[in-house]
This record gives sequence, structure tokens and C-alpha cells, in this order.
Amino acid sequence: MARYSPSVQNLISKLGSLPGIGGKSAQRLAFSILSMSQEEADALTGAINEARKLTKRCSICQNFTDSDPCPICTDAKRDTSTVCVVESPRDVSAFERMHEYNGLYHVLHGVYNPVGNMNMNDITLTELFARLTDHPEIKEVIVATNQTAEGNATALYISRLLSATGIKVTRLASGLPMGSDIEFADDLTLASALKGRKSVGS
Amino acid sequence: MARYSPSVQNLISKLGSLPGIGGKSAQRLAFSILSMSQEEADALTGAINEARKLTKRCSICQNFTDSDPCPICTDAKRDTSTVCVVESPRDVSAFERMHEYNGLYHVLHGVYNPVGNMNMNDITLTELFARLTDHPEIKEVIVATNQTAEGNATALYISRLLSATGIKVTRLASGLPMGSDIEFADDLTLASALKGRKSVGS
Repeated sequence: MARYSPSVQNLISKLGSLPGIGGKSAQRLAFSILSMSQEEADALTGAINEARKLTKRCSICQNFTDSDPCPICTDAKRDTSTVCVVESPRDVSAFERMHEYNGLYHVLHGVYNPVGNMNMNDITLTELFARLTDHPEIKEVIVATNQTAEGNATALYISRLLSATGIKVTRLASGLPMGSDIEFADDLTLASALKGRKSVGS
Repeated sequence: MARYSPSVQNLISKLGSLPGIGGKSAQRLAFSILSMSQEEADALTGAINEARKLTKRCSICQNFTDSDPCPICTDAKRDTSTVCVVESPRDVSAFERMHEYNGLYHVLHGVYNPVGNMNMNDITLTELFARLTDHPEIKEVIVATNQTAEGNATALYISRLLSATGIKVTRLASGLPMGSDIEFADDLTLASALKGRKSVGS
């Protein structure tokens, strides 16, 4: 291994433990941070501390926010009968970017993943069920967890627990991405698109 | 754009200004940092501050180090007649990993790049020339800047300034990477390999 001093090695390892940052990227980031002016470095650590200090979870939807309840939950123009359940705040951002959804959200901050030391109590399911009980105006829960084994397991779990409540539980359609070629589709996606086929014109 | 609070937006933009971190990665990192425990966040900002506090430039080779002079410059087993000039501390690490070079280093902390607001005074050329004057035992300077226009310009500049000193200035060979296919080589690399061809067996 390279001859880095312990403090540099520690910085590289801390950066390398962030998601999507491999060994080479961590080294590159570390040396970039070491080469910064003191003002730039203070701005970076300041931004981390400031964002963490100001950011809390919205008491209603559990999304990150600096005002509680968050701007989406307090927006009188939103459709309060629909709640879209997502894994992460970034998913809320993806939905908002689309400008096609006007309901509310519920951020789970994870999925059901017993292998990854994540279980039902680590995600905000308790808060979701309490919210549904307190807000009888909610008629539909759209489970928009990722199309992974864990995402599907979470969706199934939610739909089972809500089966007696009369709340409609839906899941985002799976199938071929728009603009994609069938010849390059993976088997699971193609099978899912076939299973979910629709009448033309419907 | 997504509805992030100003402090989160600021964190995303600070992270996005780091090298190799695009918009999506910056968002992912920011939410990962927001989801950390306080201990993990403190360890990250602590590692940044600690590495910056303890790390200085070696007064001889300008590499980052926590002891001045650095372990390489003080290593009695190294060949002090050869200095390898590199752009960044990561290049030193690449050479050391190879275990084939036993000389010393000089880290420029950049290359000659007038377009990128980097000029000769921003890199450690003054320190290099002072070092060569103070240490007449240095007989060869290997210019191991990257094979880019800026790297080549820097190498040419160094070789011109040292032309009267009697110090041998060499440049790493350019050519086809080991294991590569000629059909996939780019024109510049192939031309450089042709120009630098060698007698078989030499």
C-alpha cells in the first residue's frame, strides 16, 4: 500500500466509506481536500455541520426538511388523499421533478433488508401506519419502493398490513423503460412487461 | 429543480465541487451524510480537519507528509542522485506501489496550464530549481508529468531551464500500454509508439 500518513489514511478511509466512493476516488477527494484553501475547507465542513444542524425529519412525511412540517405537507394545493411511499428523500426529488404527481409522500429512509442489518423497526413504517390512522382522508397508498427484492418485499408487507383498512395500496408499474429496445431488455424486465401487458387503446 | 432546503442545497453544491463528483453523486453523498449518526459525521469532519492540520508539505520534495522531511526524503536507502518530478502526491503513490523506483521525488502540485488559471508560479518549480542547486549529487531528473498537453509543456519547460546545468532530464516513455491491442490504440498513442520504436533485443 501507498505511504500515506495515518491522518491522510484515515481521511481516505472515511471518504471511502461514503456510498459510491471507491478507493481511487477517495484518494482523489482526500488530496483535493488537502490542497484546498482554509476557507474552502471550512466551507465544506461548515456545510456538513450546518445542513445536519438545520435539517430534521418532517413529523408528517419523514422527509428531510428545515421547517416542520415540510413545505410539501403544508402545501394546501396538494391532494391529501394520496400518499406515495418512497425509500429515500432523493425519490421525492425524482417525483417532484416530473411535475405529474400532486399527492403527498412518506419517506421510509430504507427498505426491508434483514441481510443488511435493516429491519422493519429501522424504517418509518410505524409512523406511516399512525399517519394513516390519524388521517382517514388518505384513500390510496402508492408504494414506490425500488424494483428490487427488498423494495418488493417492503411493498408486499405494507399491502398486507393495510389489507383490512380499506385503503387502496398500489405499486408503480414495472415494465420496459420508455425508449428502450426489447432486444437489450433483461429477462426479468421483459417477463414483467409481458405479464403486465395492456389492451392497446385502453 | 428539486425542493431541497437551502442548507441541503449548499451541502450538495459544496460536495459537487469536489473532483469527480457530479450532481447525482453529490445528492447521494449529501443524503448519506444527513442520515449518518452524529458520531459518524463528527468522525468525517474530524478526519478532514485532522488530516489538514497534521499534513504539511515536505520542505524537500513538497509531497504531503506529517513529518518534515518526509519518510522518503529521509530514507538512507534511497538513491539520492535521481529525482522523479510528478504532478501530484497520488503519482508518488503509484510509483511506490510499483516497487521499481528507488530514487527521490519532487511533487509539482499541478502542471503548467495558463487556461486553467495555473501558471509557473503556482507549482513548485522554484523549489525544484533551488533543490537542484543545493544538491549537486542529483544527476538525473525524470519528468513524470502526465501525457497531456500541459504535462508535455511542463516537461519541455523543465528540460529547457536545466539544459545548461549538465543534469540529465528524461521523460517517461510513451507508447502502447502493456497488454493492449493495436487495433484499439488511438492515433496519437500509435504515432508515439512508432516514433519511439526500439531495436528488438536492445
